[in-house]
Amino acid sequence: MIHVGVIGYGYWGPNLARAVAESGVAQVAMIADQSPDALARAALRHPAARLTTDLQELLRDPAVDAVMIATPVQTHYALALAALRAGKHVLVEKPMTDDVDQARHLVDEAARRGLTLMVDHTFVYTPAVQAISRLVREDVLGAIYYYDSTRVNLGLFQRDVNVIWDLAVHDLAILDHLLDQRPVAISASSAGFLAGRPDNMAQLNIHYGNGALAHLNVNWLAPVKIRQTLIGGSRKMVLYDDMQTSEKLRVYDRGASCGSGPYEHLVSYRIGDMYAPALSSKEALLTEVEIFADCIQQGSAPATDGLAGLRIVEMLAAATRSTELRGHPIDLVNLKVAS
Amino acid sequence: MIHVGVIGYGYWGPNLARAVAESGVAQVAMIADQSPDALARAALRHPAARLTTDLQELLRDPAVDAVMIATPVQTHYALALAALRAGKHVLVEKPMTDDVDQARHLVDEAARRGLTLMVDHTFVYTPAVQAISRLVREDVLGAIYYYDSTRVNLGLFQRDVNVIWDLAVHDLAILDHLLDQRPVAISASSAGFLAGRPDNMAQLNIHYGNGALAHLNVNWLAPVKIRQTLIGGSRKMVLYDDMQTSEKLRVYDRGASCGSGPYEHLVSYRIGDMYAPALSSKEALLTEVEIFADCIQQGSAPATDGLAGLRIVEMLAAATRSTELRGHPIDLVNLKVAS
Amino acid sequence: MIHVGVIGYGYWGPNLARAVAESGVAQVAMIADQSPDALARAALRHPAARLTTDLQELLRDPAVDAVMIATPVQTHYALALAALRAGKHVLVEKPMTDDVDQARHLVDEAARRGLTLMVDHTFVYTPAVQAISRLVREDVLGAIYYYDSTRVNLGLFQRDVNVIWDLAVHDLAILDHLLDQRPVAISASSAGFLAGRPDNMAQLNIHYGNGALAHLNVNWLAPVKIRQTLIGGSRKMVLYDDMQTSEKLRVYDRGASCGSGPYEHLVSYRIGDMYAPALSSKEALLTEVEIFADCIQQGSAPATDGLAGLRIVEMLAAATRSTELRGHPIDLVNLKVAS
Amino acid sequence: MIHVGVIGYGYWGPNLARAVAESGVAQVAMIADQSPDALARAALRHPAARLTTDLQELLRDPAVDAVMIATPVQTHYALALAALRAGKHVLVEKPMTDDVDQARHLVDEAARRGLTLMVDHTFVYTPAVQAISRLVREDVLGAIYYYDSTRVNLGLFQRDVNVIWDLAVHDLAILDHLLDQRPVAISASSAGFLAGRPDNMAQLNIHYGNGALAHLNVNWLAPVKIRQTLIGGSRKMVLYDDMQTSEKLRVYDRGASCGSGPYEHLVSYRIGDMYAPALSSKEALLTEVEIFADCIQQGSAPATDGLAGLRIVEMLAAATRSTELRGHPIDLVNLKVAS
Repeated sequence: MIHVGVIGYGYWGPNLARAVAESGVAQVAMIADQSPDALARAALRHPAARLTTDLQELLRDPAVDAVMIATPVQTHYALALAALRAGKHVLVEKPMTDDVDQARHLVDEAARRGLTLMVDHTFVYTPAVQAISRLVREDVLGAIYYYDSTRVNLGLFQRDVNVIWDLAVHDLAILDHLLDQRPVAISASSAGFLAGRPDNMAQLNIHYGNGALAHLNVNWLAPVKIRQTLIGGSRKMVLYDDMQTSEKLRVYDRGASCGSGPYEHLVSYRIGDMYAPALSSKEALLTEVEIFADCIQQGSAPATDGLAGLRIVEMLAAATRSTELRGHPIDLVNLKVAS
Repeated sequence: MIHVGVIGYGYWGPNLARAVAESGVAQVAMIADQSPDALARAALRHPAARLTTDLQELLRDPAVDAVMIATPVQTHYALALAALRAGKHVLVEKPMTDDVDQARHLVDEAARRGLTLMVDHTFVYTPAVQAISRLVREDVLGAIYYYDSTRVNLGLFQRDVNVIWDLAVHDLAILDHLLDQRPVAISASSAGFLAGRPDNMAQLNIHYGNGALAHLNVNWLAPVKIRQTLIGGSRKMVLYDDMQTSEKLRVYDRGASCGSGPYEHLVSYRIGDMYAPALSSKEALLTEVEIFADCIQQGSAPATDGLAGLRIVEMLAAATRSTELRGHPIDLVNLKVAS
Repeated sequence: MIHVGVIGYGYWGPNLARAVAESGVAQVAMIADQSPDALARAALRHPAARLTTDLQELLRDPAVDAVMIATPVQTHYALALAALRAGKHVLVEKPMTDDVDQARHLVDEAARRGLTLMVDHTFVYTPAVQAISRLVREDVLGAIYYYDSTRVNLGLFQRDVNVIWDLAVHDLAILDHLLDQRPVAISASSAGFLAGRPDNMAQLNIHYGNGALAHLNVNWLAPVKIRQTLIGGSRKMVLYDDMQTSEKLRVYDRGASCGSGPYEHLVSYRIGDMYAPALSSKEALLTEVEIFADCIQQGSAPATDGLAGLRIVEMLAAATRSTELRGHPIDLVNLKVAS
Repeated sequence: MIHVGVIGYGYWGPNLARAVAESGVAQVAMIADQSPDALARAALRHPAARLTTDLQELLRDPAVDAVMIATPVQTHYALALAALRAGKHVLVEKPMTDDVDQARHLVDEAARRGLTLMVDHTFVYTPAVQAISRLVREDVLGAIYYYDSTRVNLGLFQRDVNVIWDLAVHDLAILDHLLDQRPVAISASSAGFLAGRPDNMAQLNIHYGNGALAHLNVNWLAPVKIRQTLIGGSRKMVLYDDMQTSEKLRVYDRGASCGSGPYEHLVSYRIGDMYAPALSSKEALLTEVEIFADCIQQGSAPATDGLAGLRIVEMLAAATRSTELRGHPIDLVNLKVAS
């Protein structure tokens, strides 16, 4: 049983605490928040947990094995670093940091101390993405040609990060999990339509060394909510529509190929069956807590470990840099140090 | 009554000829095609038209007022130029040419001779796009923030042009028609997954001087057919889904705005009614033939005149150039000469 | 402030208690349930409420103004009667009873004592149904021709009531609320495919005196969940799709009419705009609690009062009777006593 | 090669003639229509066919092997009878006749003369229904519990037949093809909302001896077009949505079953994969012509032979009779004579 300290009980912290409480493998030992109101809400839901407005109290407590950090992104680095230095395993909200060097520093610190550092890229642990991951690993899809995701809705405009750091981060984590290839360049365009606010619409194009292309379309100012991803493979193709209540995942036996010999100028199209695998109804956050606890106990690395978090922060920073240059491609070859 | 010569009776020529025959304002005087089989099919449908395998015979005939060119894109320039020099008005299949200089030359030639030069950007004449155009002109949508189009399906892979010249051309024509702004830069990424074939997937990002952003997603290798365009305006937003048999167009009274004074840090969201205007069921091609005939008779310029065709060819060429540079933005300021 | 006693804290009771607590116009004074486990759960959520396994304690308490009954349907009659006799206002889960005479008895008892008797037909208080009700009252739809509802899904099979009492009850309550006409006859067919279980599929056809027709399709054994209602009016028609997350309600300016004079043999079709009104996001249960409190304080009757509950039980009983006769129509003219 | 005479070249006749011409197994020998305009249109499409306004000329011609009758339903009986007496094989538009006795007479006449009598129930020959039929025959679906079809749209109001004879006829033909059970009773309700016109909305409930239930919902006055059929089987369930351009057919591994022994009071639900089989793109009418030709040559009976046509006319008549009695069930046991 892992004893968890939750840092930050605002929007996301309550979800983490609830998942811990329901997991059976961990329990909420302490909750820290600067707001007495937040702690009052926490008391109702977690009567057995100790509460504090003093972060140090939590970090000093030897009964706390691990912390979960659900605070604004600017604070992630300092809080995670302090927790690691206090000998705690860390699960930190996405994105891991808002700066590449700080992300790298956290990775090094966790490695040096032999502590688990995990980033809460929740989507990676959804039944749909887990099922896609199996389709990739078991080579059902064949070579992955492209990943094309549309993730748009109306709001919520953030004050401090642009839409890339808020929405594209989900697809970057999924991509990092699905593909064993590393990207070589990124080109991104963005625009902002609310004066004084970060950009609310962005298009990311991610080039891979093997010729694959990923495209992410994110927008806080769309009339309708769309969560739709197409994945093209040499054998099969996937439509992942997260707005569907059932059949989120559809696997199409469709594709195209060139003829050979005298028919090489002809393209033939394959239009076979589609199937929608039944998906587990298990909550992603619960899976994530179980894996966090297991990695702590086994000393193993989760899919979304600190290195993954670092790679994703590198992508986020590179994409933002590209948008400032109207799509000028940013070379990502140095990312390989993070893999 | 305009007497039309149709050049090319392969895939698209029969549609043009049929639209002319049904229009009541024009008639099919002659049809030219190198293939006797094609002419045999033409004879069944247009018994009153003269048929020829000799293009010169068509161009020399003083009874032919105008020609419609529906041949492979590489031949557009030479055929259109010959027709203009023979004193014929010209409607040419999209894209106008595969080369910017040739497109400019055709525009100049038509201007010098006082002839109508029109490009068959059919989508501009669909009831849906005409309705969107009215929403823009009557300021229902307010300032246009973005245009975001997904146009993907399985096939048809072309041999000689990439997917930009085949599919993105439609959205470029729509954009050219809807917006009075000219683009200032384009950044595009593409990929090809069939060896020896032109790229089959591309993402175009088009930057406008006023900060608007257009994004076009085109793909010949998608498991499903999607024709979906989001248009964000300061007052209203549009979802144009061309795969719907009814309600292709939905106008949403939705948006976001910043507060003022002490509330400027708050974003408020507007979620009002949606309405789907009834659209005319008139075929786009019929509207196009009527406008072509009218422009010839009035000496006026159609929405998709040679200059529009030239601007679009410039965009197609710039986008393709950008893809070769992995998204490096191409400056389009010199496009203004074409406006 | 109305002090509420909640009877039954199983599946639905917690929702009622929560809505009371959030309403601001009422508060949870006491919760009664036979199960200590249920009461333990209640204690966590409603620490200020008194808890009891003894129903009489709740009924005797003068501080309890009103009770909400969320127990199995067979117990509704006895519990509601006891509560009324104890001088409490009553909100009872749907259906009000499983027997017409008992329903009538409750109505009489409440009337004699001047107490509010309300049935929890939640759907009537949803923003969508409230909006449809306004469209009817303001004559936007014109004369109502038909109401055609499909309400099917996989499960939950009930042990003691058939699918009519479980699912069709919702549409009967909506119909009772929308139409001022009373039905004159009902014909229903049903079938059951799980041995030893009540019928799980039923079709109800309800005839009105003015020629209108309502059709309800309910099924516990469908592969997909459908919640779709068409309402045909002489002026406009509605599609109400409760599975949509937005645009649940679509109002179509469509219809047909006969010509007049020499053209009377021609039918002309009207295909105008569609609009989807923005709906309130207020929870139906909260609205219901507010109305319950208000009716208690004003002595007025809610839309779903005991008489409405009685009319609906009469329909449920008649429909079930018709199914036993393979659709033989059941005369409903005597229902008028309940209006 | 079968030589076909087409009788009636109005709305449907041209489709039949075209299918014959494209079939390769039959050819259009003669076309009869009372309207010279219709024959002029026929001449353009079928230059090799002889044309006549004199039906007798067609019937007397020994070169005509078979006739296809595409005239108003009231004329089917007399025309089909005359054709059979002239020794011609007959394909007649649906419904076969508007009277049960006349239908039976045609069946007898064809049998006595050893001629093929086929009814053009086109839906039976669509790739979707053919695929469903295979799922039934190969026992993929298990025992068929129910068939529940919604077939509604705006128009076309007919003058002489109600919506049952116009729309429900399609589902009755599909049911007759899919199920080997014969129905035992039918209960139907209907309503009409255009004065002086036949009823435009109807609900049919068809009871089978084994407990299965079919429900057909047909309507000419709906705001949207719906073509949706649910088929429940003991092993699998089907959603057939004919408005989808792809994935018309979805097969769900879903169901419910009772526990056994001490768990018999528990219902367990099975929610497995869904798959959408790729369907042939072959036109139904072409398949139908091939089968007609083959049955003539082999002397075999098509799926939609005269007996099937008779059974369906019996159902149509019984359903209409039931609507006049507000759903009173009509006993169909005597239908067995037609099986």
